[in-house]
This record gives sequence, C-alpha cells and structure tokens, in this order.
Amino acid sequence: MAEPLRIALAGLGTVGGGVIRLIEANGALIARRAGRSLEIAAVCARDRTKERGVDLSAYPWEDDMTVLAERADVDVVVELVGGSDGPALALARRTLAAGKGLVTANKAMIAHHGMELASAAEAQRVPLKFEAAVAGGIPVIKGLREGAAANQLVRLYGILNGTCNYILTTMERTGRDFGEVLKDAQDLGYAEADPTFDVEGIDAAHKLAILAAIGFGARIDFAAVEIEGITRLRAADFAQAAALGYVIRLIGLADCEQTSATRGLFQRVQPYLVPREHPLAAVDGATNAVVAEGNFSGRLLFQGAGAGDGPTASAVVADLIDIARGDAGAPFSVPAAELEDLPAADPGPRRNRAYLRFTVADRPGVLAEISAAMRDAGVSIESLIQQGRPEEGGEVLIAMVTHEGPENAVAEAVALLQGSPSLTEPPLVMRLLG
Amino acid sequence: MAEPLRIALAGLGTVGGGVIRLIEANGALIARRAGRSLEIAAVCARDRTKERGVDLSAYPWEDDMTVLAERADVDVVVELVGGSDGPALALARRTLAAGKGLVTANKAMIAHHGMELASAAEAQRVPLKFEAAVAGGIPVIKGLREGAAANQLVRLYGILNGTCNYILTTMERTGRDFGEVLKDAQDLGYAEADPTFDVEGIDAAHKLAILAAIGFGARIDFAAVEIEGITRLRAADFAQAAALGYVIRLIGLADCEQTSATRGLFQRVQPYLVPREHPLAAVDGATNAVVAEGNFSGRLLFQGAGAGDGPTASAVVADLIDIARGDAGAPFSVPAAELEDLPAADPGPRRNRAYLRFTVADRPGVLAEISAAMRDAGVSIESLIQQGRPEEGGEVLIAMVTHEGPENAVAEAVALLQGSPSLTEPPLVMRLLG
Repeated sequence: MAEPLRIALAGLGTVGGGVIRLIEANGALIARRAGRSLEIAAVCARDRTKERGVDLSAYPWEDDMTVLAERADVDVVVELVGGSDGPALALARRTLAAGKGLVTANKAMIAHHGMELASAAEAQRVPLKFEAAVAGGIPVIKGLREGAAANQLVRLYGILNGTCNYILTTMERTGRDFGEVLKDAQDLGYAEADPTFDVEGIDAAHKLAILAAIGFGARIDFAAVEIEGITRLRAADFAQAAALGYVIRLIGLADCEQTSATRGLFQRVQPYLVPREHPLAAVDGATNAVVAEGNFSGRLLFQGAGAGDGPTASAVVADLIDIARGDAGAPFSVPAAELEDLPAADPGPRRNRAYLRFTVADRPGVLAEISAAMRDAGVSIESLIQQGRPEEGGEVLIAMVTHEGPENAVAEAVALLQGSPSLTEPPLVMRLLG
Repeated sequence: MAEPLRIALAGLGTVGGGVIRLIEANGALIARRAGRSLEIAAVCARDRTKERGVDLSAYPWEDDMTVLAERADVDVVVELVGGSDGPALALARRTLAAGKGLVTANKAMIAHHGMELASAAEAQRVPLKFEAAVAGGIPVIKGLREGAAANQLVRLYGILNGTCNYILTTMERTGRDFGEVLKDAQDLGYAEADPTFDVEGIDAAHKLAILAAIGFGARIDFAAVEIEGITRLRAADFAQAAALGYVIRLIGLADCEQTSATRGLFQRVQPYLVPREHPLAAVDGATNAVVAEGNFSGRLLFQGAGAGDGPTASAVVADLIDIARGDAGAPFSVPAAELEDLPAADPGPRRNRAYLRFTVADRPGVLAEISAAMRDAGVSIESLIQQGRPEEGGEVLIAMVTHEGPENAVAEAVALLQGSPSLTEPPLVMRLLG
C-alpha cells in the first residue's frame, strides 16, 4: 500500500470532531478504498482545553494555524474554521502557496474567493476540494462536476438551507407563524442565535453561486444572486398555497439564458410555490436536495442531510479519499481561467406564474385599486383569494395567482402600488416552480 | 489541450445512437471539462444500413466487432451490444487484454463477469467503468464508489427497474390488474415484448448485485440475490396497501449483517410496502432511485431517469470524461482481489413487519385455518382485512399485516398452509420497508 495521505485539521468544532471520529471509525475501510490510509498529522483550534468528545492526545497540536501550511509532514490541510475572510482565507492562501492540497467546508470563503483559490490551486497543480461546502453530506459537487459532466445544464435548483426548510415545513405542518417557529428552531438547535445568514437566504446564495459556477462553467458571481429570505412569510401564505396544491420552499435556482443577444447567468434564492407532486415538495425538515436538469440526463435529484457533523464529515473525507486516489482536475470542472465571465441575466422577460399576497387595510375600494394596478401593468389574474375575516389590527390578506407572464409586468404592478395607503406592507411575490 | 480520447463504439442501438448524438451536441463543452476532446475513432454494429437517425458517414466503420479491440487508434472501447456472454463478453475480454479501457452499459455482463473483468482491467492498469449499467443516467455508481466512500454502509436499497415502477405506479393510480397494465406498457414501449427480465426482477437483481459489491466491498454474487418479481400482484393488494398508508414498489435491498458469527451479505429484490411518507413512495413512473444509508452520511438519495437513450448516454459519456481526466482506481472501489467473498446471509432471523395475502375458496373455516397456522408458527397479527365480496370464481382475498417478527416464522406459517385445499394459490408475502 502507498504512503498515507497526511492531513492537518484546522478547526475542531462540530465538523472537525466529526472528521476525527469518522477517520477513527472507518479508517481501515477507507484505506482499502483509497489504496492508502488517511493520517492526521496535526490539529489546531483556538482552545486546546475545550471538551470535544474526542481524544486528541494522539495528534500533534499546533497553536498557530498558519504553521499547518508549512509543516513538511502535511500533504493536505482541511480548513474547518469558517468565515469568508480572516484566518480561514489566510490559511487557504498559505496552504495552496506552499503547494499543499486544501479541503474546506467553507461556503462563504468559496463563494467570495473561490476563483482566486482555484487559480492558485491550478497554478500549483494541487487539489482544492469543497464538497462539504454545499448541501452537507450530499455528493452534489461531484454529481455536477463529474456525474452530469456530459450534459449542458438546462436548469439547476434546490433546497440548500436546512434551517429554512425546517422552519418552512414546520410552518406548513403546524399552521404557526414564522417568529414562533424560528424561536422553537433556535431552542432545538436547528437555527442559530443569530439566524440572519440562514433565514435571509445568504447561506443558500453562497451555495447556489458555487453550484452555478460548476454547472454553467461561469466565474462565481455571488454579488449577482438575487436574494430573498423567508422572514416575511405568514401562516396564511401556507394555507393559500395548500389550497392551490402547492407547498412553500426556499429555492436556489440558476440557469443560463441563451435567448437574448448576450448570454446571462440567472441566480435567485427565493421562496417558491412548489407543486405538491414535485420531488422537492417531499423534502422535509432539515434535508437538502438539488435538482440538475441536463440536456441528455433529464432531471437528476440528489438528496440527503444538509448539515450535521456526520454528514459534513462524510463529504470532507470523501474529498480526502478522492485526493488519496489521485483525483485530478479543475475545482470548478473547467480551469478557472476558462470559466466564462457571464453577466447577470435580466429577470424581467422571464415568464412565470406568480403568487402575490397583499396585506391591506380593511376598507372599500382596496381590491379595485389592486386590480387596476394589475390591469395597467398587463398582469392577468388566474385566481383570486380574498381572506374575508380581518386579521389582528384590521388587516385583510388578499392573495392571487397570475397567469404565466413576464416578471417585469408583475414588478410594474407592484411599483404602481408603491406608497399606496391601502397597503400595510409591500406586496409579497413568490413564483410558482414550473 | 491534450490529445483527444479516441473511442470505439460497439453497438449502435438506442443508447449507441444517443452517445453519438451527445458527443456531437456537447462536444465542445465536454472538451473544456475533460481537458481533451472525445473522438469517435470507429463504430460497429450488426447492420450498417439500418436507419438510426444519426449520420455515421464521418466515423470509420468496422464490420467485425473484435477488431475494435485491436485498432491502434482506439484508447477506449464502449460496449453497448448487450447480453451477459457471447459477443459482448468476447469484446470486453479482448479490449482489456489489449490494454484498452472499457466502458459498458451491460448490467448482465457485469453482474455475471464483473470480477473477472475488473481483475483483468486492474492487471492491465486500464479503466473499466459501467455507470450506465445501473439506474440509467443517475450517477449512483460514482455516488457509492466516491461520494459515499467515507462511510460504512448500513443499508442500500432502491427502485432499480423503470418498467416495473411504471407498471406498479400505474396499477396504483388506475386500480387495474397486472396483466392489463403490462399490455398497455408494452404498447407504449415501456415494457418489452418479452418482459421476463424486467417483471420477474432479474434486471433489478443484476443492478443490485453490482451496487452491493461496491457498497459492501464484497465480490459480486448475483446467484445469491433472492428474487421475486411483480407478476403476482393484484389490484386488491394496492387497495389494501393504500388503506394502511403504503404504496407498493419493487425494491432491491442489500445489507451486510454483522450480528451473526460470520458476516453475510443479504441481497433481495422483492415488492415491498413502502410508507407513503418515504422518499421512494414519491418515485413515479419509469424513474429510478437509490438510497444509500451510511454510518456518517445518513440517508443519501439519488434519483433520475432509469433508462432511455439520453440518460444512458449521459452516464456512458460521464465515464468517458472521467477516463479523459485520468480517473484511476478500482472499478469496484476496492481492488478485485481484496473484495470479500461474503456468504449469503440467512434471511430467517431478519425482523420485519410483513403483509400476507391469501387467496382462498369462499367457505367456512378458512380464516380459522389461516389463523391457526399463524399462531402455531408464532406469527403475531397486527391487523386483518378480509375482503367480503367474493372475486370472480368464488375467491375471497384475506390480507393481514404482522407485528414485527422474524422472517422464518412467517415462512413457517406459509409452509404449514402448503397444500391446503382452502388456498387457491400460494400466499403472497411482502415486507414493509422499515
């Protein structure tokens, strides 16, 4: 058997501990599969004395993370520190500059600095791998980069944030409102004390930007992701969706428009109405799922646990096994220098059916005002649901579904209603996943 | 860019035509991803004049398939001829012996001769790949061999035959009987004129044996797969299952029992009752899906089109891209010589809930006779459904679900009833997927 692959672990939180437990539990099996064993050559974290539930005494400890990149007895550094910049990025840069491989679960860092890091890795001919950065234990980066590699992707979309999916499916099941369910999720450990990155869609957008780059051969453009979170959803939206045969899921969706004169990359994270018979409607709780529609493969679905120490460690170690086996190739499937610099696609002409929900003061003429705005913007209403009984504070909800039409018509209708004293908050717009 | 990967195509049926169309349509994209282009250096099929909907004039034609393995301008032979033995196997052997790579979609050949071919490929240090042999366009071999490589698998199961799933989900939806639905499926092209391999579970068993070898690091043992098809199912079974909250799916399932003194590999293809909330219950029509439960990853689901020229070609070309990128490693994850020769596990002690359906003559005392057999065998009945109205020919159906118990108790009860003049056919036993 060949020499062991010697790894250094930076960051010993939940995932770092999981990686150590996994290598200890499955080490013999991994050595048979990889043709060589994985050896933990050094570990590093902020606090050496913290109780982690794993015995670290067998592993050389480094107080200074950056030293990991310099150690002669390390082949690959596993970065599990987190944060898009700061120490994680510094370590990543030093690791690649030192000619060592890098494995990371850091979606924010890859979404912001993936192009730089991929170029550095390619220049040094060392691996850079980040399966654990997207959708936890699901091998979806591999699925896109290799499994679906023969295809031109038509569309790529999925449920990329387990916290949001837990909250949405709980709201759906219990009929409770966002704030209450979020609080429970925090108590249960499904949501963090500061849930902003999750519930505002930023975490899902990081993942989407990474997937879109691989799927469409484009440079990562996180700034171009149109992002809307789930904080504005109400119990009533779920009831309306259910009556129409839909559930609500936070969907990250990307496609590459070929119709216009210039090709553009479309990237959006937003709550969508998903038909109950669609595979993503069955994705419950903290589960993640990604759909890749290829021009030959048709619809491929990858589903599994989107977070947690075990699943994330499974993805980190899968990357290490790939490296141990001699996996080569560009981190983003196509060499970084050849990735296209695609402009963001204008969503205006995209044709969709849309769900619009208005929260209005309970007084005469409101529906006429809304209907007039729709008419003037050229939005055709397929069905209208006015919830008769006023909610707390005298508010009434009016929900409607439009016929298929361009998004800019809906945007125009919303603009026409802006500032109307009849509306107690801006209209909520969700697309129906077609 | 490196030299092209030169391939020879043997067999130009639906899939072969799909491979040519795919390479022609996505060639430029593939070259960017693989770092080199795929070049079709030779093609071969039985009949040169057959209309295939693709223009073959650009590709050198060989009348004699075995010549493909000898051509100096060929790096990889793609075998799409089919059949476990005969010309396909001869070509595969010659190709590997000549030191060329082999890509195949031939599940029967791999299930029967995979060990021999893997050893030959490893001895010659050439790739042998067969992603298209299992679950069409779904990258499930890659998912197991690489994506889940860090895990000890707990269990592996899935819907592996699109024809059966189409028939079962149509029976479920329409309430019609097997024979009728099969005939329609044949008329629509979802089932072959001779549907034996599909409806008797043999095709699914080929695929399961391949997956089990990779998933559990065992030598392929197709002969040990316990196989039962779907031909005995009746409309009434679906109605009973639905009343209990279940659907019926043909499931291929494998696990590796560690409890007994000797480790054993359990492999079964059989109709199962699947709880309606399980992801496999949502798998409709000709779709395939595979679940891998890893000890760290948790439940991973891979789903997509299980057949068809586009999806299968997508898998074939994904293998070619892997080879073009320099993919190395053992075809079955672990080198063939290191795969364990596991005995078949005894299903007797396995604990399950079971559905039993008896077709009986409509006369007094039958239920007492069945109940006595259950009692004598130690099978505890959870719920009993007797369908009151006699079917055609005076038959009555009695269905029951047992409490969890060992399979050998159910087998004993069935044995006790063997030869009973009350039963008009042997009892039908299906397990509930837990």
